[in-house]
Amino acid sequence: MRQPVNLAHASRLVNHGPTVLVSSAHGEHRNVMAAAWSMPVEFTPPRIAVVLDKSTHTRELVLASGRFALNLPCRAQADLCFTVGSVSGSEADKFARYGIKSFDGPATGLPLVEDCVAWLECRLVSEPHAQDAYDTFFGEVVAAQADDRVFANGRWSFRDDNTELHTLHHLGAGVFAVPTQTVQGRVIVPLPDQG
Amino acid sequence: MRQPVNLAHASRLVNHGPTVLVSSAHGEHRNVMAAAWSMPVEFTPPRIAVVLDKSTHTRELVLASGRFALNLPCRAQADLCFTVGSVSGSEADKFARYGIKSFDGPATGLPLVEDCVAWLECRLVSEPHAQDAYDTFFGEVVAAQADDRVFANGRWSFRDDNTELHTLHHLGAGVFAVPTQTVQGRVIVPLPDQG
Repeated sequence: MRQPVNLAHASRLVNHGPTVLVSSAHGEHRNVMAAAWSMPVEFTPPRIAVVLDKSTHTRELVLASGRFALNLPCRAQADLCFTVGSVSGSEADKFARYGIKSFDGPATGLPLVEDCVAWLECRLVSEPHAQDAYDTFFGEVVAAQADDRVFANGRWSFRDDNTELHTLHHLGAGVFAVPTQTVQGRVIVPLPDQG
Repeated sequence: MRQPVNLAHASRLVNHGPTVLVSSAHGEHRNVMAAAWSMPVEFTPPRIAVVLDKSTHTRELVLASGRFALNLPCRAQADLCFTVGSVSGSEADKFARYGIKSFDGPATGLPLVEDCVAWLECRLVSEPHAQDAYDTFFGEVVAAQADDRVFANGRWSFRDDNTELHTLHHLGAGVFAVPTQTVQGRVIVPLPDQG
């Protein structure tokens, strides 16, 4: 079930490098594309960066509207993720073409993709040079939600009983790595003569 | 065994969002820190972005030397990754303190961490505004290597027989997700009335 995520925890949604779906809208137009290249850049205010190539329809909509949303697809949506990453939205409405269900983001009204496992609504922070030179768009997260079956109390919980809800991490050519296991790191004791 | 990676494939090393170790050096000083926040930004020339907080010793060394390297730690190094992400290098040489073995990067001479599974040596592309406003450092990858037991022919290969070599994806508090499985996405057939 979708639950709001405290903005102080927004970076944790994308800290582990998932591939995201970027949704956007302006006027009568809307679009959704896959993006493997995004990262958090700041905890407070929560800010992220995402790469939007100059060839994408999404880029036009984001620049025109000043907003975008990151939707985190899960294992059950691998086909959807690969498909919206393979087809341009400049020719057809991908939501209609592929029967992708969406709901309105509470903060921005942007179309958020149903059955994803997390959603970050963002206000574009205009940085024309970074956009032009590196296709890098900075955004401030203004609202976040997650599916509490897999993200609760500010933490992801990838378990054997929720594998279909695990995030996708694109390796290339439609092959996605899925974080089905976790490991706990421990702080190493310094060598004796190093204090 | 370490093998050179064609620069045209460099982005694939980090496309799936692994946590990296950033190594740096200037004069007599060297350092290594963990960074969950990095991403590719361009295929050709291969460029990446990484967030280096203003509090880090690494940032000083990168600014002074104009270079840095991303080392991709694997499951067997979860303790190492968490440790160098938890301790500042401003007080002690972490390589010596924790007995971290390194070898010289062929392109930059930077200390690269042994037993990682991939290495990207980078030349800093100076962007003072992005560095100041978003702690975001852009770099051009000038050389890349990977362990051919887990990355070969331009592709990651996460299998049951190489689980200790799988990449780490930090969820928070030293818990890392590990991509032990993969799934193949397929392009969806459009709905009948959508052409």
